[in-house]
Amino acid sequence: MKAKFQCALCEFSSGWETIKRATKDEKLRIKAVIELFRFLADEFSDEAVPAWIGSKKDRLIREITGNPDPYMEVKAKDNERALKLLPLVRTAVNSKPEGYERFREACKVAVIGNAADPDILGHEYDVSSVISLLSHEDFAIDHIKNAYYLVQGKKVMIIADNAGEIAFDIILVEQLKKMGCKVVVAVKAKPILNDATIEDAFVVGMNEVADKLITTGSDVIGLFLNAVSGEFLAELELCDVIIAKGMGCYESITEQEIEKPVLILFKAKCDPVAEDVGVRRGDNVAVLIS
Amino acid sequence: MKAKFQCALCEFSSGWETIKRATKDEKLRIKAVIELFRFLADEFSDEAVPAWIGSKKDRLIREITGNPDPYMEVKAKDNERALKLLPLVRTAVNSKPEGYERFREACKVAVIGNAADPDILGHEYDVSSVISLLSHEDFAIDHIKNAYYLVQGKKVMIIADNAGEIAFDIILVEQLKKMGCKVVVAVKAKPILNDATIEDAFVVGMNEVADKLITTGSDVIGLFLNAVSGEFLAELELCDVIIAKGMGCYESITEQEIEKPVLILFKAKCDPVAEDVGVRRGDNVAVLIS
Repeated sequence: MKAKFQCALCEFSSGWETIKRATKDEKLRIKAVIELFRFLADEFSDEAVPAWIGSKKDRLIREITGNPDPYMEVKAKDNERALKLLPLVRTAVNSKPEGYERFREACKVAVIGNAADPDILGHEYDVSSVISLLSHEDFAIDHIKNAYYLVQGKKVMIIADNAGEIAFDIILVEQLKKMGCKVVVAVKAKPILNDATIEDAFVVGMNEVADKLITTGSDVIGLFLNAVSGEFLAELELCDVIIAKGMGCYESITEQEIEKPVLILFKAKCDPVAEDVGVRRGDNVAVLIS
Repeated sequence: MKAKFQCALCEFSSGWETIKRATKDEKLRIKAVIELFRFLADEFSDEAVPAWIGSKKDRLIREITGNPDPYMEVKAKDNERALKLLPLVRTAVNSKPEGYERFREACKVAVIGNAADPDILGHEYDVSSVISLLSHEDFAIDHIKNAYYLVQGKKVMIIADNAGEIAFDIILVEQLKKMGCKVVVAVKAKPILNDATIEDAFVVGMNEVADKLITTGSDVIGLFLNAVSGEFLAELELCDVIIAKGMGCYESITEQEIEKPVLILFKAKCDPVAEDVGVRRGDNVAVLIS
């Protein structure tokens, strides 16, 4: 997906929020925001992919402000909240009939967990509402039945998105394993926004559930094959199906040829992504690209 | 007043909104927003005055989009709404005892009218609530008594701010004239944002009330002596007291030596201005600089 006019406002305002989180030094904030203007003047266009701009932008802000992880507190809080809810969520999912329905419910949990995203303009979230959302929300695009038959007994790679959300992904890993799958979970190699890193995976206990825990080898949002490590590519080569989480994955995967079936699970948190995939803002999406 | 870090977000988002109003052409919007990023990279700093950046920014957007007046509809609507309310507002003001109290009420009307400002981040307005605001709101900084004694029988220049608002300023002009003042009203020479121009002054009937109606000779927000016409400067030289409306006047006048007493009337619609003058956001200010 290419950037739209509307993305300019979101790219800038989320960058501004990151600067605000990264430092309290007014002079440094001003310096960083001027560099942010210059970066966006050079990089923003309707040929650019938002997740790519966002990744480079966030890197620039971390460098200028000298704060390697502006979302550290947000991530810790979201992990903690999600962990507290996990037993309740697991019970809710396990109350569904085993098989397709339970897998679908686990996918729903994984998407509702994707709501946890600060600093997206006009998008508010509350991780604690996940239980009520589970019974009230459904998918606007639902390719889960196809995905269900596709993953049976296969090697699956989950590309994780945010901290907090990664706790809910445990439920999905558990279901996949019951279906005879081998599950590799990939997180970011370094902090970027509130995306889950190895630390977050350990905090929520993903390391104990996944068959393998790896990193993308990079701090880039979504999945850009030109930005990941050789080790990650080797793992990708070995897997049969990819389950990719979040809008960054949607934005990036729709611009590349990925030679594996990919189920992209996300909540459409902004108008440009919602319009691109053909749903309304706030809708839940499970779109299979194969 | 110099720009703060927070102003960067407001400068960009208000520019983005202006582009959105100015053209529906997505390609042109993208081109304009990239130029906006570059302009702010070059011009934004903690040495710049927000009203000056805003003026140059708005001029740039009008040039690139080819729309000479993106706020034409907003201004027409605000003038119409304000005009409908004018008889009620006049009755409310005239119910106050003649003299200082009535003058103060007219100043309050002029400040409440200043709430009419679209595209200021986090600030919402409803011109039609002016009557209820009149009885509920007061001044956080109130130098009106000093101003009242200062203006008696003098030549007063009112530097108008927004369309819509200028209708409410008629009440202030009426009171000043009852106090024996000669009143010159200055509006912008060309459209900029929703600022009142000669057209707006005529639509609301200011031309029939003011002793003289002039323009600043420029499209610049607030009062910058280096940006106005020789005719305007000659009028300024002849007047005894200035009544300047709006945050743009506050931002610009506090950065210059104006050799006349100035009563600045405005609603503090953003945190940086509110903090600079020492009030809370949303507060009404009547500050006399002499």
